[in-house]
Parts: sequence; C-alpha cells; structure tokens
Amino acid sequence: MPQSRKLRAGILGASGYTGADLVRLLITHPDVEITLMTAERKAGLPLVDVFPHFVGYDLPDLIGLDEVEWPAVELDVVFCALPHATSQEVIKGLLHATNHSLLDELIVETPADLASSIQGEVKVVDLSADFRLRDTETYAKWYGRTHQATELQPKAVYGLPEVYRETIRSASLVACPGCYPTAALLALVPVLKAGLISPHDIIIDAKSGVSGAGRSLKESNLFVEVAEAMHPYGVSHHRHMPEIEQELAVAAGENLTISFTPHLVPMNRGELETIYVRLSEGTTVEDLRGHLIETYADEAFVHVLGEGIAPATRMVRGSNNCVLNVFPDRIPGRAIIVSAIDNLVKGSSGQAVQNMNLMFGLDETTGLMQAPMFP
Amino acid sequence: MPQSRKLRAGILGASGYTGADLVRLLITHPDVEITLMTAERKAGLPLVDVFPHFVGYDLPDLIGLDEVEWPAVELDVVFCALPHATSQEVIKGLLHATNHSLLDELIVETPADLASSIQGEVKVVDLSADFRLRDTETYAKWYGRTHQATELQPKAVYGLPEVYRETIRSASLVACPGCYPTAALLALVPVLKAGLISPHDIIIDAKSGVSGAGRSLKESNLFVEVAEAMHPYGVSHHRHMPEIEQELAVAAGENLTISFTPHLVPMNRGELETIYVRLSEGTTVEDLRGHLIETYADEAFVHVLGEGIAPATRMVRGSNNCVLNVFPDRIPGRAIIVSAIDNLVKGSSGQAVQNMNLMFGLDETTGLMQAPMFP
Amino acid sequence: MPQSRKLRAGILGASGYTGADLVRLLITHPDVEITLMTAERKAGLPLVDVFPHFVGYDLPDLIGLDEVEWPAVELDVVFCALPHATSQEVIKGLLHATNHSLLDELIVETPADLASSIQGEVKVVDLSADFRLRDTETYAKWYGRTHQATELQPKAVYGLPEVYRETIRSASLVACPGCYPTAALLALVPVLKAGLISPHDIIIDAKSGVSGAGRSLKESNLFVEVAEAMHPYGVSHHRHMPEIEQELAVAAGENLTISFTPHLVPMNRGELETIYVRLSEGTTVEDLRGHLIETYADEAFVHVLGEGIAPATRMVRGSNNCVLNVFPDRIPGRAIIVSAIDNLVKGSSGQAVQNMNLMFGLDETTGLMQAPMFP
Amino acid sequence: MPQSRKLRAGILGASGYTGADLVRLLITHPDVEITLMTAERKAGLPLVDVFPHFVGYDLPDLIGLDEVEWPAVELDVVFCALPHATSQEVIKGLLHATNHSLLDELIVETPADLASSIQGEVKVVDLSADFRLRDTETYAKWYGRTHQATELQPKAVYGLPEVYRETIRSASLVACPGCYPTAALLALVPVLKAGLISPHDIIIDAKSGVSGAGRSLKESNLFVEVAEAMHPYGVSHHRHMPEIEQELAVAAGENLTISFTPHLVPMNRGELETIYVRLSEGTTVEDLRGHLIETYADEAFVHVLGEGIAPATRMVRGSNNCVLNVFPDRIPGRAIIVSAIDNLVKGSSGQAVQNMNLMFGLDETTGLMQAPMFP
Repeated sequence: MPQSRKLRAGILGASGYTGADLVRLLITHPDVEITLMTAERKAGLPLVDVFPHFVGYDLPDLIGLDEVEWPAVELDVVFCALPHATSQEVIKGLLHATNHSLLDELIVETPADLASSIQGEVKVVDLSADFRLRDTETYAKWYGRTHQATELQPKAVYGLPEVYRETIRSASLVACPGCYPTAALLALVPVLKAGLISPHDIIIDAKSGVSGAGRSLKESNLFVEVAEAMHPYGVSHHRHMPEIEQELAVAAGENLTISFTPHLVPMNRGELETIYVRLSEGTTVEDLRGHLIETYADEAFVHVLGEGIAPATRMVRGSNNCVLNVFPDRIPGRAIIVSAIDNLVKGSSGQAVQNMNLMFGLDETTGLMQAPMFP
Repeated sequence: MPQSRKLRAGILGASGYTGADLVRLLITHPDVEITLMTAERKAGLPLVDVFPHFVGYDLPDLIGLDEVEWPAVELDVVFCALPHATSQEVIKGLLHATNHSLLDELIVETPADLASSIQGEVKVVDLSADFRLRDTETYAKWYGRTHQATELQPKAVYGLPEVYRETIRSASLVACPGCYPTAALLALVPVLKAGLISPHDIIIDAKSGVSGAGRSLKESNLFVEVAEAMHPYGVSHHRHMPEIEQELAVAAGENLTISFTPHLVPMNRGELETIYVRLSEGTTVEDLRGHLIETYADEAFVHVLGEGIAPATRMVRGSNNCVLNVFPDRIPGRAIIVSAIDNLVKGSSGQAVQNMNLMFGLDETTGLMQAPMFP
Repeated sequence: MPQSRKLRAGILGASGYTGADLVRLLITHPDVEITLMTAERKAGLPLVDVFPHFVGYDLPDLIGLDEVEWPAVELDVVFCALPHATSQEVIKGLLHATNHSLLDELIVETPADLASSIQGEVKVVDLSADFRLRDTETYAKWYGRTHQATELQPKAVYGLPEVYRETIRSASLVACPGCYPTAALLALVPVLKAGLISPHDIIIDAKSGVSGAGRSLKESNLFVEVAEAMHPYGVSHHRHMPEIEQELAVAAGENLTISFTPHLVPMNRGELETIYVRLSEGTTVEDLRGHLIETYADEAFVHVLGEGIAPATRMVRGSNNCVLNVFPDRIPGRAIIVSAIDNLVKGSSGQAVQNMNLMFGLDETTGLMQAPMFP
Repeated sequence: MPQSRKLRAGILGASGYTGADLVRLLITHPDVEITLMTAERKAGLPLVDVFPHFVGYDLPDLIGLDEVEWPAVELDVVFCALPHATSQEVIKGLLHATNHSLLDELIVETPADLASSIQGEVKVVDLSADFRLRDTETYAKWYGRTHQATELQPKAVYGLPEVYRETIRSASLVACPGCYPTAALLALVPVLKAGLISPHDIIIDAKSGVSGAGRSLKESNLFVEVAEAMHPYGVSHHRHMPEIEQELAVAAGENLTISFTPHLVPMNRGELETIYVRLSEGTTVEDLRGHLIETYADEAFVHVLGEGIAPATRMVRGSNNCVLNVFPDRIPGRAIIVSAIDNLVKGSSGQAVQNMNLMFGLDETTGLMQAPMFP
C-alpha cells in the first residue's frame, strides 16, 4: 500500500488502562505514529512517568485537553478514551473546532482508504459509552444524565467490525462496543439472525478481570479486596445491558430482554461469558456450532474451537481474538455458548485499532496479529 | 457437657487438601483428639513433612492404611478423605474388621450423644462421593464403575445438616455432600420445597477455587495454567450434577434435570454459584428472599445478606458459613439466587465436622465458629 | 483461672485490615468480649456493613471517636489500630479522660493477672508506630512530625513478647512492633545477643503481601498495579528501619546500621525476610541454627524448621506463628537466615492479642492457637 | 534488507513454556517462518492441541525428534528448548547428521548476514544450560552428569548480546544465558569491569514468577502450593550460581564467589533481582548509576530508570526489556542495584531471538519491539 506518511493519531485520556493498551498496540502499528496524548491530572508529564513500562519508546509528553489546538494539531485519527459524559462533550467540541463536515445535516461518507483519508478530516474512534446507544433516552435512563450531543448520535457507527464492517469503513465517528457486549454479540448475533435460538430466554453469566473497572481509586478495586476471591456485581443493572439488548434486538428483528450478571475475577485481563440459550424448534447444538463456524470461517479474530474444547481467557490474553464454542445442555432444548476475549483488546483498545484500520482502508489486521501471551 | 475424655478421631487420607483442612479444624476442636492419620505415599512420615504449616502441633505420624489394626485402634470417629471408589472399599473393610452393627440387615439407630456414643461403635464420616448417590446405578453411570458396597448405600445418610439434621444425629455412616451440591442445595431446597420456583428451569453457573481439584499432579492444576485466567470445565457432564438433581428432586417431589456449568477461578478457596430460576406463578423475588431468610433464621452457618448485597467468596474464606442472597432478574418472572461457600470448609471438611458434632450429640457449632479470614 | 467476667475490649480504628483481623481473633477468644469499636468515616454503621464477612456475629455498631465517653465506657483493654500521629493523641486523651495513673511521674507497675486487672485501669495496646521508637527525635526525623506525647513514650513497653515478656506482663501501655521488625528481630536478636554474627553487616531483603499497605485508596494498591508483578519500594528509607536498628542495637550492645529493602508481592497476607549475615570469627552455621533452636524451644509461636526446609509464608497464613531457618551461604563466613510471619497476625493483630494475654495474666496462647490456613 | 526468502526456523521442544513463547515471538517476526516443531509426548498433534491460544495461526504439526530427517529438513536456524542433558546430545546429533563444519577442529566463523547465511549451514540457538558453562567439570559438578559434547563446548558462544555481541554475530552455536544470570549480569558486568564494586561482596536476592519452573508436573508447581504465598528455594545451591560466577569472574578479571538466593513469587512471568554490593574505595552511588546509564545509552533493551524509580516486573512483562536502577544503601560504602526482566523473554525466548537476529545479520531488534503488557 503506497503512502507518503504515517497516520497521525491522538489519544485523549492516555493515562488509564485503556489508554495504555492503545499505546501498546499503536507503538508497533506500521502505519501509525502517536503525535498527541492527553491526560488531565498528569498533564505536562512524559508518559513514562505515568506508565514506566514505556521506557525506551519515543512518545510525546502528556498535555491537558485545554492545551490542544484542534485545527492546528493536524490529526488523522483521534482515539477518545475518556469517561462517558466527558467524551461526548469533547468530541462535539473537537468537531466544531475543526469545522467538521460531520456536523452537517447530511452524513458525508468518508473515503475509506489511507491515501485519500489522510488528506481529509479527522476521524474519531470513541471508546466510551457515549455513542453506543442509538436511543438517547435509553442513554439518559441508564447513565443518569441527558445526552449532550444528540445531533451526533445518529452519525455514530457501532464499531463491531464482524457485524458492521462495511458501515465502519466509511464512518467518521465510531462508537466502540463495551467489553461485555463484544463477547456477547459475537456469540449471539449470528445465531439470532439465523433464528436458531429463542430471543426471549437468553441468560448471560459474565466474568471479568479487574482492569475492566479502570484505574480509579475505589476500595472495591484494591488488591486485597479482589485477590483470592470473587463475586457478582451490578446484578440486573449493569450499564452494558441496554447495549447488548439493542444489538440483539437488531439481530432478532424484535425487542427482547436479557438476563445479564457480571462477576469480578482476580485476574488483570480477560473476560468470559457463559451464555445459556434455548434452541429454536428443530434446531440442534450442532446446528448452532456449525453456524458459528461458518459465520466466522474467514474472520481473523473470531475462532470457534475444536469440539468440546472450552474457551479460556488465557487463550486470548493480550490479543484481539475472541474464542467461542457451543456445548449441549442437559436440559433438553437448551444449549450453552461460551465466549472469551481480552477485555482490554478485543473488548476495547484492539477493537478500536481494528476500527481505525477499516476507517482508513488499511488491512483490518494491521498491527493486531501479535499472538496471545501464554504463559 | 460432662465427658470423661475426648473423641478419638482418625483421618484416612490426611495428605490431601481436604485432609489438611480437617486437621486444621480438629486441632482447635475442644472435644476431639486426632489419634490416627493415614496417607499411602507418605506413610511413615510425620505430618509436618507433608504439611510444614503444622509445625508446633502435636500430631501422630502418618501411617499406611494397611497398617491400621482396626479393632484395636479404638477410634470413635473416622473421617474418610480418600478418593471415590477407594473410599467405599475401605469403609466396607473397616466395618467388617470391627464387626460393625451397620452391616446387619436392620439399620440400628446410634445413640447421638457424646457420653454414650464414645462407648460404642466407630462412626464414619465419608467425604468422598461414594455414598452420596442413593441409586447405585446412577453411581455406576457417572463414576464409570460398579459400586462395591451397595448393601451399605441405603444405610448412609446424606450429610447436609440444614436439611437432614435429625437423621444425621443417629447415623453411623454419613456421606458429606460435594462442594457444588452444598452451595446449590442450601439455595434451592427450601424454595423448591415451598413451591416458589419451577423445578424445570434451573441454571447453575458455578465458580470454584483450585483447591477443589485436589492435590493431584495434573497439568491443568499448575499455577501457570490457572493464574491470570479462567475457564469453564466439565460442561454438562460434571459428576456433581446427579447429586444436585437427586436432592432437588426430593425437595421438588418430582424428577428434574438441571443445567450446571462449573468454572475454575484463580484463587485457592471459595465457591460461588449464580443460580437462574423461574418463579412460580404469583411468586415474587421478595417471597423468595423472605422464605430463605425465614428458613435460615436460626441456622448458625447460613446467612441471607442484607438486601442488594452480593455474596462474595471473601466473606466466607476459611469459615463454615454459606452466604446467600436473591436478586430480581430483568426477564420478568425470573430471579437470581447467589450462594457462596468455602469449598474446603462448608463444602467439605467443615461440614464433615458439623456432621460429626451432630452424630455425637455435641453442639453443632463446636469448633466451627472461627470467623472468616479477610483479608 | 477463676474470673467473674470477660475482659471488655475496645478497638479504635476497626474498619481497617488490622482492625478486621483483631475482630477475627477476639471473636473466638474465650476471655474477651468486644464492647466498643470506632471508625470515623463509617461511624454509625454496623461492622457488617464495612466487613460483610462478620455476618452472623453479635458485635457492637461502629461509633466515632468523639462519641466515646471514656470514663463511662468501662473498658479493660483498648486496642489502638489508628494511623500513627493520630494514635498518640488519642491515647494521651483517653489516659487523661480516665485520669490514668500512667500519667503520674512514676511508672506504676500494673497487676498482671486477670482477676485483679479487670478491676483496675484500662490498659492500652497500640498497634501504630507512635510508641515504638524510644528516641522521640528519631521519631520526628522518620515520621516528619514532632511527637505529641513525649512524656508517655518512656512508659511504653516494646511489645515483642519473645524478648520483653516480663516487662509486658506489668505494662499499661504496649507498643506493638511493626510487621517487618517482628520478622527481623525474632531472627536476629538472639544471635546478636550471643555475639554469633557481626552487627555491622546485616542485609535484610524483605517481601510482604499487600495487606501491609492498609486499606487506603492509593493507586499503588490497586489490584491491577500489584497482581502478576513485584517490585521493591521505600528502598533505604522505609520507616521500619530505625525500629529494627533500635532493637538490634539493644541486642548487640552497640549502635549499628542495617541494610533493609522491602518488596511488594502479589498476595494478601504474608511476610518473608531473607537475611544475609556475617558470622563471627569461629562461629558456624550450625552454631547459629542451634542457638535459634535452643532459644525458641519453649516458645509457642516461633519454630525453627527441620534442616534445609525453607520457610514459606503459606506455613503461617492466618496464624500467630513465625517460622525460621538458617542456611549456609556460598561466600565463606556468611550465613542466610529466613524468617516468615503473617504480617497481619504475628506482625500485627495476633501479637497485639498475645501482648494483651500477658498484660492480663492469661495464658499467652489463649485464643491464638488456630492452625495456619493452607490451602 | 533484500532477501529472497524468510529464515526457516525449527523449534525443538515446542510444548513447554519456553517453546510457547518462542512461537509467540517468531509468529510476528518478519524474517522468520517456523517450519518444524518437535515435542515428544505430543508428537503428531497440531500445536493448537497443546496450546489452544495459537488457534488461527498457520503452523506445522508437532513431530517427534526421531522423525526429523536432519539433512533433508533444510533449516536455517534451530532453537533448542529441550531439557539440559538432552540438549547436548540432540545438538551433537544434528551437527553430525548435517556434517556441520562446527565439528571440524578449527572454528569456522560463519557469515553473519542474512543473504549469505541462509545459503549455509544450520545455526543453533540453545536455550538449555548445556553449553553455558565453559568448564565441563563445573558442569559435571552442578548438573550431576558428565558432559557428552565436550568437544563442542569451546565452540559455543555465551549468548548475552550486550556483552558478547560481536562474537555472537559470527557464531554457529549460541548458548542462551539462564534467566537469573541475565538479570544479574546486565546489572553487574559493566560495574565490575570498571572496577566500581568489590567482586567479593556480591549478594543477589532473586525473585521469579512460576513459569521459570517449567511445565513439569511437580507438586511445588501446583496453583494451590504457590498462590497467596512465597518462599526461597535452592538456597545456596541453585544451578544458575556457577554460570553467574563464571561471567562475573570474566568481568572482574579474577575468581569470585557470590551469594545467590532465588524465591518463588505467585505470578506467571517476571524476575526481579535485588543486588547488594560494596562500592570500591572512592566510588559513589552516582558513579555506579552513571556508569550503567552510559553503558546502556544505546542499547535497545536495557534501560536505567529515572532516579529513585524502582524497577518492577510489570514494566517488562512480555517484552525483551531489562530495567535497572541503583540506590544508596544506608550502610556506608554499600549500594543496591535492582534489575527486572521477563524471565521468558529477555530471560529466555526473547534473548534467543535477539541472538538469532545477530547471527543472521538482521537488525538486533527485529520482531522484538512489542511494548510490555501492562495491565
């Protein structure tokens, strides 16, 4: 692919775990250079003061968001790893500051190939929850505040490449899915679309490593509270529920309500979902498994394991992979789908890079083929 | 309680994790002294060579099973922490060797108080799976071998004190429940008995620490395979399933099939079950929770937590407690029950001691009131 | 031991990890009842709201320090688990409030037996650093503030029972040693006293679990920062250094300077020190080991392991034990002493209870004989 | 770099942790393709059956060593990740089978650039201990067996690139250093060479994650034995001692004996060494630190951290980096050097790839610049 220069990438909110993993992935991405990183409390510091593991890499210092001179900074892509609510205001602000065509009433399809893209307007990959929910009233209900950029919401594309690949290619604003939704949707969207399971009897028992809770100072995130222990949290009211339901409803073609219970597990990374489903009349477990195998046959990052092999988070650690499998349930007519991802990679930063690759016409796997790290 | 001497306890299979935790609990039990411990590969060694953490305690050396001179050894109680299959043969053997009345056709109720018991025949608390399943054909099917002590099976009492307390009091042979069944049954038996949930839509998503897998040398138990990771195992064919179904069927008054999926979690101890149930017509989540509160109001070891508080394994670590709670599910008509125990205590050795207390007319909580260890 | 009633114990600062472990130990102590617990931010709550693992135990609610009516509250013993600096002021205040004879110029020896003690004045067991350093100028230098109770300092006894047992028996104010000092002093005091090693070539490489850092909200205590990782901290300026040096100087009979480097290890509990020493002329490793064996032959909580067996933190988890051993070094004339404790028990709350037992004429091991918890 | 094809690499012993990490690193190496992998017990299986995390990568099946047809297999480089003792025999065998010029009496310098190398004879990178010790009698003493390839030993180059870079470039057989030696030598060789510290007062307190112990089924490697605990092992007789001493002696220009104590830490990866040294007369801590900074100024993988920042294993996880720092000791005239690596990367597989890069005239960092993985 001929190109005169690398993509200039900015990371807003680079001092959190998601930011750190974005930096990790972009450092070895052959077509990207990180030219801007922001962090409010750490503004002015070299990144290495916040994350000493980046010693030896040549990276720009952290600055405050206020210091960014948007039109002048000349970024090709902005990764927004800010908290929800903040994210929508910052993205709105930067679009206004750059007089972005996305603010026009009509959605302008952007040219999705590197050569032409890097001459154009900045593209935004948002890792927060702010543009995931199409219905801003649902957003208001679950996030406890009115959405401040409702006019942008319809222009955001839900960034699950395995489902929305083509739309992502020409998007200017992509909302990366949450980690739990990613693992759930990759397992469920194809089989719901194909009518192989009931949309009204879906129970998702989810387990996550602690990095999913972020780097904020909460007692519940302290080592001693988490190590050698596990527990559920947010039972029946976790904010990823409406997002999962939104996308499953699209797949099923009807509204639905799911049961979803996340658990905190004493590990840094990794997410596993054990999903209990009811088969449609006449459907077998083999049908389910066969359909997933077929769906993902050509996908680089989603793999259905050999028959009977249980997905494990150690199989995806540090990688952009999702591993899936289907098992019979002892209750007749039911099946169990297990899905595992690394919450920080396919569940966050890796998927963000995958989206960026698509948005700029790069090979979707560029910079993302590092193997999982086991041990 | 007047008594001339302490109960003489033997532990068969003292070199495994279950054995170690039995020793830990019995060391501070005021009415027991450990007078015999066996271990095959470690026979001849002081226990401290196998478990150096017992340095400073005065305990008998390990001997081989062959070396035990049954009639002469004069034990009041035998804890059998041997692997299944071995257990049934050893127990049968020791009953024959002591010419035990349990071998008679009629079951002789034993006097369940310390003063008279310690004059009598040895009582057996079996921690293996060998006498848990009432139907020896089910045993044969799930354990892959014909039961070798079918004549003893009907005389064994299922040792879940909160359900079978009175029967246990006068039993000579108690089969301690498995760890997964314990957590499941404490949550489900009362509400099934009361008809509050459907017996045909029970999904148990179970998570366990690694000590549950024992001390055997399997690659899957190595630190590096387990740490920083999690995964399901034995999906739809774990051997605790028929045991759970057996007891739930008794509670429900009809046969039933459950969905049960265990997961391995990187922690030493602890077991958590997230149980998805369908409420009976007209029953509410409050009914369910209220019924469990009422059921366990006077129980020393089972506690329903305050509304909305999620059970966590750290709340029971090292103790004989089970903590429970009930949550609404977003799917109408469904509820979620969460149950947490320490797999080695209430799920094994602690429950064994609780059974022993009952069998000898001791206060059920004797030696078991140590608080959970957090941190 | 005849006694009319249990000791009434108060715990100041019950919502931290040290407080939690004090409660755990006192709950099963046969001669103590907890009648008062304070916690500032959690005042007004039942302890179970802060530490749900105490569900089922009958304990008083948490109150604020301001709410304690000192003379009226009628405590026999106060455990002060407050931060340093706060501790000295609170202890001074309560002594004044109760018009305590310790404030008199002469130190009054208190009667160290339960029968007479519980009629008398309150005794204080301080778990903070405030009364450990005899020289308040050293305190000022290392803790960055002037000591506010210099008049009390000379009346405090350093609470390492294996060294100061007799003095502790008649003390009214005991300063419990820090966790690192405890492990170091048990290894080094006897051999320095006996002149077996050089006082000027002592290198202590210490490793601790994370509970030693307390429950405060610091980024460095977050699970993700600590898990799957380790690192040294406070190199050459950890506050336990002057405390270790103070006591080693007493043992050696001369001033000395040590090398001490603590490390944070991804585990909840446990502390291990690998101590590199130079043998005195003519002394052998066997002499060193033999002397420690002899010294601790009758001690309940300190154990020298069998030759060649390496102390491990898992051998003491949850117990008041210290395990020691001595190894030859390859460098001629040097030896290696390894010492392991549970930082929250022998390194803090257990030792506090041991001191309390001595101060009230109880058997020193009362309530402290629970076996270590492995697994 | 123009090249007609990729290097064909074989991995002998691909089913261990070292093998797995080699595969991980080589998968994304732009100049290498893995064309052969052996594993005895797993022969005949796809690698994905042994390491399911490699799902989705195109790799050859595992074969047995016996099945390798050496001359025909046409490898450019062989990585030997076999156990010591086996390694020497296998390497000897493959050199004979290929009639390798290394067997000639004179050592033939190999052309160290890719273009010419890949036309030539196979080069061997040995990750075992078999060719590390120059003195085969020392080998016999520490490894308990006579060396079976003494004639090859003088032709092996010790593969620590930062010390032996130029020799490695033209070597045909490289012996990769052990993990502990790597971390120690990077810290000590430069300052010994410069005469800044005493060679006779070096104490190395080392801590390692569990993957260093390999994948063998030993009780001491079980999760439950290791988690939530730590302990020293091999005190004064670990096999890495003579290797460290050999290389330090070269640097110091005189024989020396070190004190070395390794500890097992509950983490998968990572190694940290806290090294206590005595400064030479007139040398300061700043001199020491300054000299290391200068030495490693142009090294890609060795980094001296900012003043006062403590090296931590999380800073190097998954990367080929070593982070170092120097601290003052409170004992006058002493200093503390801390060194951290990932035992599987810079301590094993990464260093092997670094050596291969040098041996084939590739840029030394090729395929090794992935950033550390934190979280």
